[in-house]
Amino acid sequence: MKKAELDTPALVVDLDRLERNIERMKALIAGTGAALRPHVKTHKSPHVARLQIAAGARGVCCAKLAEAQAMADGGIKDLFVTTPVAGEAKLRRAVELARRARLSVVADDEAAIRALSQAAQAGGVGMAVVVEVNVGQDRCGVPPGPQAARLAQLVEKSPGLRFAGLQGYHGRLQGIPAFEPRRAEVRAALDRLMLSAEPLRRHGIECGVLTGGGTGSVALDLELGGLTELQPGSYVYMDSSYGKLAWDARGTPIPFEQSLTILSSVVSRPVKERAVLDVGWKSASADSGPPAVLGLAGAVFEFAGDEHGTLRGIDAMNLRPGDRVELVPSHCDTTVNLYDRIVACRGDEIVDLWPVAARGRSQ
Amino acid sequence: MKKAELDTPALVVDLDRLERNIERMKALIAGTGAALRPHVKTHKSPHVARLQIAAGARGVCCAKLAEAQAMADGGIKDLFVTTPVAGEAKLRRAVELARRARLSVVADDEAAIRALSQAAQAGGVGMAVVVEVNVGQDRCGVPPGPQAARLAQLVEKSPGLRFAGLQGYHGRLQGIPAFEPRRAEVRAALDRLMLSAEPLRRHGIECGVLTGGGTGSVALDLELGGLTELQPGSYVYMDSSYGKLAWDARGTPIPFEQSLTILSSVVSRPVKERAVLDVGWKSASADSGPPAVLGLAGAVFEFAGDEHGTLRGIDAMNLRPGDRVELVPSHCDTTVNLYDRIVACRGDEIVDLWPVAARGRSQ
Repeated sequence: MKKAELDTPALVVDLDRLERNIERMKALIAGTGAALRPHVKTHKSPHVARLQIAAGARGVCCAKLAEAQAMADGGIKDLFVTTPVAGEAKLRRAVELARRARLSVVADDEAAIRALSQAAQAGGVGMAVVVEVNVGQDRCGVPPGPQAARLAQLVEKSPGLRFAGLQGYHGRLQGIPAFEPRRAEVRAALDRLMLSAEPLRRHGIECGVLTGGGTGSVALDLELGGLTELQPGSYVYMDSSYGKLAWDARGTPIPFEQSLTILSSVVSRPVKERAVLDVGWKSASADSGPPAVLGLAGAVFEFAGDEHGTLRGIDAMNLRPGDRVELVPSHCDTTVNLYDRIVACRGDEIVDLWPVAARGRSQ
Repeated sequence: MKKAELDTPALVVDLDRLERNIERMKALIAGTGAALRPHVKTHKSPHVARLQIAAGARGVCCAKLAEAQAMADGGIKDLFVTTPVAGEAKLRRAVELARRARLSVVADDEAAIRALSQAAQAGGVGMAVVVEVNVGQDRCGVPPGPQAARLAQLVEKSPGLRFAGLQGYHGRLQGIPAFEPRRAEVRAALDRLMLSAEPLRRHGIECGVLTGGGTGSVALDLELGGLTELQPGSYVYMDSSYGKLAWDARGTPIPFEQSLTILSSVVSRPVKERAVLDVGWKSASADSGPPAVLGLAGAVFEFAGDEHGTLRGIDAMNLRPGDRVELVPSHCDTTVNLYDRIVACRGDEIVDLWPVAARGRSQ
């Protein structure tokens, strides 16, 4: 079957581009001493995770326990959940998961560490705990400084738990398009993480991993040093936001290719000034703005409700109902989360249909 | 099982409130001569559609053919697809659907009507066609005036098709919070629809339904007259955007109750100024802004990524990891579309788990 025969909206991945992106990340990290643990919150697919592991990734990062469960179901054995675990229901999930995979979780709170230890003991399992440091995103994490070492000591003496390192992740800086401002922010974030790593060493605690980073910072993380494990996710699929990133001071474009697109159809062309597509907020995420339009110079997409978008700047184009238009998501993670499956293509040929196994697994 | 035992994020509906909303809409429309055909794009659940039909709805509106298929699978027999059908794959779906349900579809284009007729004939099925008029939203639809009558005549002489009326829907005006500006826009939209209905009568074409309206306009649609079929959807669940609507010139609040909430957990309380919740863009839609916070006066939710939100304005509150916070979606349709199931509760008691059967069915 050909891509052109698909019903729309359809989420499509170009396999050649995906494979080149995975190879490029492997080459980037090779020989640096850092390890790659890609974040699956982008693709939510054990299939892609297996491709990443085959290319040398040591395991995966998962945003939530339910996402990690979907990865375990897909045969992935080394899982790091990058969000703190809190509450009875989540503790039960964590214990269940630790029975069938090598599980690390994040913590930033004494009571949460005690609850984790109690659950691990009661369940007869072991878990690794990474202490999160707030390196500037002002989300989770203890402040930079001695507090992380105190939590690390608590983890070390808590039955069922093993201290495994520090996480310092700063999502917002990943998307700063200009190189120098991004570089300055990455350096500041790394400095904050080191402020927490130093006291560990002074207390004689084995530091374990220093984990963080993303697609927008990976080259800088490698250049500036410090992180021992890198968490990029978006590089496999890319999106129009990451597509705007300058890779270096000379403004070189980011070396990862856009492998993910939304195939849409024109459903109405009521006037020459606009066409209406069958893609709206339910098939393209809006958190990072509207998707971009591929291959139609001057055409601009505007959301027009749950299930529609309007295309403008097309006055001279002969677009008729039934014609196809390909869109580039503005944010790959949240767009992928709208689809139950993704169509894998080589050129115009459909070669596979991958379930987005962890779609909606936000628990 | 109690609501408090649920893992989070969980999408919850309060059944008492849902049932009262359905009764209120029934009472509002009773005796006006207009019929109710609620839009299922809000709930995407055959279960809720059956409650609406039991309360007198004559059928349902569906945004897409795949959504209508999910309703047919759930036993709903009278389906109106409110988006134009274009392209081979969608024509095949329409024919398949017309075999097992009473199907009406929308059209605004000559070539699309010819393609529909050809597909209906080839498939040996009949379909009703509603011609869409652009009443101000500038999305699909022919301009107000004689053009709708020309398409109606084409439908009438097309084998396999039956002309069934005109649609004039204007989504943006539904959400205008102030009463008088909304009233003015509703009147203007109704006037535009009547500009297309008049020529039909002059050509001796039976007008069929005049369909449109929504939760924000329903009282005005009834007061101003003209529509014979009303399409409100959001009234069953409501959201914080519709919650701001003035119902009349005196500023009476909208009479539908918020029955839908997102149950979330605190996963981190790193400083007194903020807590971090396990709800982000993957579990609450962002197209209409952040969700509101229920029952914590002064607390404000801010999106903090795919899987997190921060809660501010809580300095004096003793919120700890594991504590529950209930959120009100800013847009019910797109938030429901993120969940595979919805938890039906009476008070704190869980009484059912409904699949969101048409989740992701955007084709």
